[in-house]
Amino acid sequence: MIGRKLTARLATEELILQDVVPFDGASVVSDLSAPGEAEKLVASRPELIFHLAAVVSGEAEADFDKGYRVNLDGTRRLFEAIRKEGGGAAGPYRPRLVFTSSIAVFGAPFPEAIGDEFLSAPLTSYGTQKAIGELLLSDCSRRGFFDGIGIRLPTICVRPGKPNKAASGFFSGIIREPLAGEEAVLPVPESVRHWFASPRAAIAFLLHAAKINTERLGARRNLTMPGVSATVGEQIEALRKVAGEKVARLIRREPDRAILRIVEGWPPSFDARRALALGFRADRSFEEIIRIHIEDELQGSSVPRPARA
Amino acid sequence: MIGRKLTARLATEELILQDVVPFDGASVVSDLSAPGEAEKLVASRPELIFHLAAVVSGEAEADFDKGYRVNLDGTRRLFEAIRKEGGGAAGPYRPRLVFTSSIAVFGAPFPEAIGDEFLSAPLTSYGTQKAIGELLLSDCSRRGFFDGIGIRLPTICVRPGKPNKAASGFFSGIIREPLAGEEAVLPVPESVRHWFASPRAAIAFLLHAAKINTERLGARRNLTMPGVSATVGEQIEALRKVAGEKVARLIRREPDRAILRIVEGWPPSFDARRALALGFRADRSFEEIIRIHIEDELQGSSVPRPARA
Repeated sequence: MIGRKLTARLATEELILQDVVPFDGASVVSDLSAPGEAEKLVASRPELIFHLAAVVSGEAEADFDKGYRVNLDGTRRLFEAIRKEGGGAAGPYRPRLVFTSSIAVFGAPFPEAIGDEFLSAPLTSYGTQKAIGELLLSDCSRRGFFDGIGIRLPTICVRPGKPNKAASGFFSGIIREPLAGEEAVLPVPESVRHWFASPRAAIAFLLHAAKINTERLGARRNLTMPGVSATVGEQIEALRKVAGEKVARLIRREPDRAILRIVEGWPPSFDARRALALGFRADRSFEEIIRIHIEDELQGSSVPRPARA
Repeated sequence: MIGRKLTARLATEELILQDVVPFDGASVVSDLSAPGEAEKLVASRPELIFHLAAVVSGEAEADFDKGYRVNLDGTRRLFEAIRKEGGGAAGPYRPRLVFTSSIAVFGAPFPEAIGDEFLSAPLTSYGTQKAIGELLLSDCSRRGFFDGIGIRLPTICVRPGKPNKAASGFFSGIIREPLAGEEAVLPVPESVRHWFASPRAAIAFLLHAAKINTERLGARRNLTMPGVSATVGEQIEALRKVAGEKVARLIRREPDRAILRIVEGWPPSFDARRALALGFRADRSFEEIIRIHIEDELQGSSVPRPARA
C-alpha cells in the first residue's frame, strides 16, 4: 500500500518498481530473496532505492522460515548486491537507500514515551527482522557501501482497503468501516494507547528521507518517526467529531483477549526528537488523520455510502 | 582464551568442544558456518551449549565477508540446527544456550553510565554481528526453540598470552608486559575510561548463565555484565600499588591518534542493574583484576621474571 502510494508521488521516468507479486505498474516481478535477483535490480545503478519489501507481522509470526527468508535474507541480499556493484569493474556506486522499518522493533515494558536511545527488544519475529535490517543498514552505511536511512513508521492509520487479519487491523477498521457505513469490531478496551501516522504522512517521511542530508544523522541511521499518540477512546471521539454519533455507533465492542495480549506489547507513545529536528513532520491530530482518509480515499465525503453487499 | 578457561572448569564427561582450528582437547574441528556442520554438533542433543565462536573485532572490520560469515551466518546456522533438531522425529529438544555477546554492541555517544535500556548502535561490524546474534537469540528463545541467554562481556583484562593487534590490546598490555619485566606501549591518554572484567569473572558469568532461572529474564534475554570502570590512569595506579613503581615505569607513552579514535567510541561505564539483580558479580576493583592475573597466570608472583628474548 505504502509502495503504491509512494510511486504515485515519484517522477515516473527511470523508475524501477519491483514486487514479488505482479501489480499495476510493476516493472520487475521477482523474489528479492532468491539468488541473483537483487544483483539484477541494482545493475542499472539507481541513485535512490526505497526498500519497502516485507512479509507482514502476522505472516512472519505464522511462518518463521518465510519471514526470515524475505525480511532478513532479502534485505541482506539487496545490501550485498549494492556493495558488490560498487566494488565491481564499473567503479564506485553509493546510492541513497531508504529502508522502511517499524515501531515493532520495540517491545514492552516501555517508558511513558519512548526516546531515541531506547533499546530495540522486539516481541515478534517481524520486529526482530526489521531490527536486524536496521543494524545491517547502519553498518553498510558506516562502511560507505550506500547512504542508508531507516524510517520506523508508526502504525499506518487509516489503512485503506479491505479489513485484514493483522492484530493491528482494528485500529484502522474502527474508522474505515463506520465511514463506509459498515459495522466494525473493537477487540480491545478504549484505554489502549498507540502511535499513528496517516498514509499521507508516511509517504512524506519517505520522500523527506530520500532528500535529507544524512551527515546530520551521524552513525545512527535509523529514526523513529513522529506520530500521533491516541487511545482507542480518543480515536472514537475524533470519529464522532468528524462524522457524527451515528457513524461512531457502528463500532461494536467484542473483547478478544488474544488480540489484547499482542497489542499490550506495542509501544504507546514516543518522544521522536531526532526526527523532528531533522524536519520530519507528523499529522497534527487523530482528527486530521481521519480527514486525510476522507479526502484521499472517500472523495471528501464523511457521509457513509450505502453498505457494501 | 575464554573457551579454554571455561572448558577447564566444566565437568569433562560428555563435553563436546568444537573449534575451527585444532586446539588441545577439541573433539570436533569444523567450520560452524559451513552447511551441515551445526547439525552434526547438535545431533547428540547437548543439554547446554556455550556459543563463543567469533571472528574478533579487528579481523571482522578488516574482512567484511569473513566477519559476517562466521559471526552472523555461523550463529544463525547453529540456532537453525537446534530448531530443526527439536522439530524433528526425535521429539522436542530445548537446550540452554549461552551466547557470548560484547559491549561492542554499544556505540558512542554514551550517557555517563549505560543502563539496561540503552540502544545497541554499534560502530563496528563485529558489534553489529553480535547485536544481530542477540536479536536472533531473543526471538528463538521467545519461540521456544532453545532457552537462550546472551552475556555482554566487558573487555577482558588482563588477557593472558602474547600482545595482539586488537585496538584494545594495550588495556591488557600495560599490565601484562610490565609484570613480565617488559616494556608496554600506551597509545592513549590516561583519562580514557573503559569497562573491565578479569578472565576469572568472565568464566563465572558464563557458568552462572548456564544455571540461572531464565524465567526471570522475561523477553529480554541479553544482559550487560557488571564490570570495573577504570581510567587508564587508575589502571596504572593499581599496577603501581600491586607491583611497585619500577614495574609501572615500564609503560611508555606513545600517543596513537588512530587507536584513540577507535577507543573513544567505546563505552566507559555501565549501570548493569539487571545482571546484578540476577546474581552476576564483577571483580571488586582493578587492583583485584591485577591480583587475579598474578594468581592465575604468574604463579602468584608480581616480581618480573627475566625479560623474554
